[in-house]
Amino acid sequence: MMEQNHAQTTVTVCTEVVLEQAKVAWADLVIFQFPMWWFSMPALLKGWVDRVLSRGFAYSSGRKYETGHLKGKRAMLSLTTGTASTLYSPNGIDGDLHHILWPIHNGILAYTGFTVLTPFAAWMPTQVTRQQREQYLQEYADRLSLLDDLPPLFFHPRQDYDEHQQLKPGVLARSGVQWNPRSLQTFEVSASTFAGQVSRLEVPTFATNKRKPANGESS
Amino acid sequence: MMEQNHAQTTVTVCTEVVLEQAKVAWADLVIFQFPMWWFSMPALLKGWVDRVLSRGFAYSSGRKYETGHLKGKRAMLSLTTGTASTLYSPNGIDGDLHHILWPIHNGILAYTGFTVLTPFAAWMPTQVTRQQREQYLQEYADRLSLLDDLPPLFFHPRQDYDEHQQLKPGVLARSGVQWNPRSLQTFEVSASTFAGQVSRLEVPTFATNKRKPANGESS
Repeated sequence: MMEQNHAQTTVTVCTEVVLEQAKVAWADLVIFQFPMWWFSMPALLKGWVDRVLSRGFAYSSGRKYETGHLKGKRAMLSLTTGTASTLYSPNGIDGDLHHILWPIHNGILAYTGFTVLTPFAAWMPTQVTRQQREQYLQEYADRLSLLDDLPPLFFHPRQDYDEHQQLKPGVLARSGVQWNPRSLQTFEVSASTFAGQVSRLEVPTFATNKRKPANGESS
Repeated sequence: MMEQNHAQTTVTVCTEVVLEQAKVAWADLVIFQFPMWWFSMPALLKGWVDRVLSRGFAYSSGRKYETGHLKGKRAMLSLTTGTASTLYSPNGIDGDLHHILWPIHNGILAYTGFTVLTPFAAWMPTQVTRQQREQYLQEYADRLSLLDDLPPLFFHPRQDYDEHQQLKPGVLARSGVQWNPRSLQTFEVSASTFAGQVSRLEVPTFATNKRKPANGESS
């Protein structure tokens, strides 16, 4: 991190990274399109994150999350999967999709200041019918046309955290992933509230796109 | 995946990958030592996973999780972090460490058949005192000497899942991440039970290593 910071401040970042950073600086919306790969990004895309969203460019000491350098920009994950949506549910063998994406949503996108939009998932596009694939495309087009109207994912603002960067007593966790032992709200209530918020969007998401399940395979 | 499978069965995998696969095939314990980087593995290590744990070598159709090709081997994550343990708690700004590691624990290690050991975390080694760092080393040595005695992480066996690969009604989620809306158990109870299991190990882990928190920085 210190090396990244030094390179950024002394303008010794390599050209290919500078060019990618320029694209991010220019964009007001960044869509990350990738196949879920080992329950995360493919390594090539992770490498892009590791190198391009560097300290000094995307964040710096005291400037992260709501004061991250990329504040004002929006980001959205658009995924394809190798398995059915049922596997990515709370009691699915893969675990809830929102939990699996939390390291990216919270740890990369919100961390650097992005406003994070609800992800879009096309389930098992290589396994479904041509008709279903065309429906995915239509749903994706619909989603893109609605971006300005859809509420983004919620992340707790700084004021909800204490000096140890933990949610203060009485703060109800609303991220869908965290839960606060110091509040009266259980995780399940928190997660259900989140799922309800998502389903009210009435667009295809991991929470609402419950098509016929199939025995697919991961990664 | 199909390309990987073809390469594996026709022995056209490139030499450097074959050599890495030979190391995995030889090992009975694999320890992944890495700095938490953007809430996940560094891309270089993720690339190792993407290429080395390929379909045909580490898993295949119908042979994953408890019948994965790497069954009988053990794996453990050993992490260093840029932030304090408090941030990786259920109400911490990073979210619970066990949730953040779930994509790796469940999606990579358990998926390919590994028995997954409790992770070891050295919190903020670059920020703490020399004395604390030496304590980490001692704790790590203690941990390694206890590997044969420590219960591994729990993942639900196949029989707990229905035909949609979701936990059956009445099955109590015990992974610490999943929860089963079809059972009477809430997520919080599930997570608390898991945390209790971990703390009973009485070795330094993300659940028990609650040293003095500091205002550290992520990634």
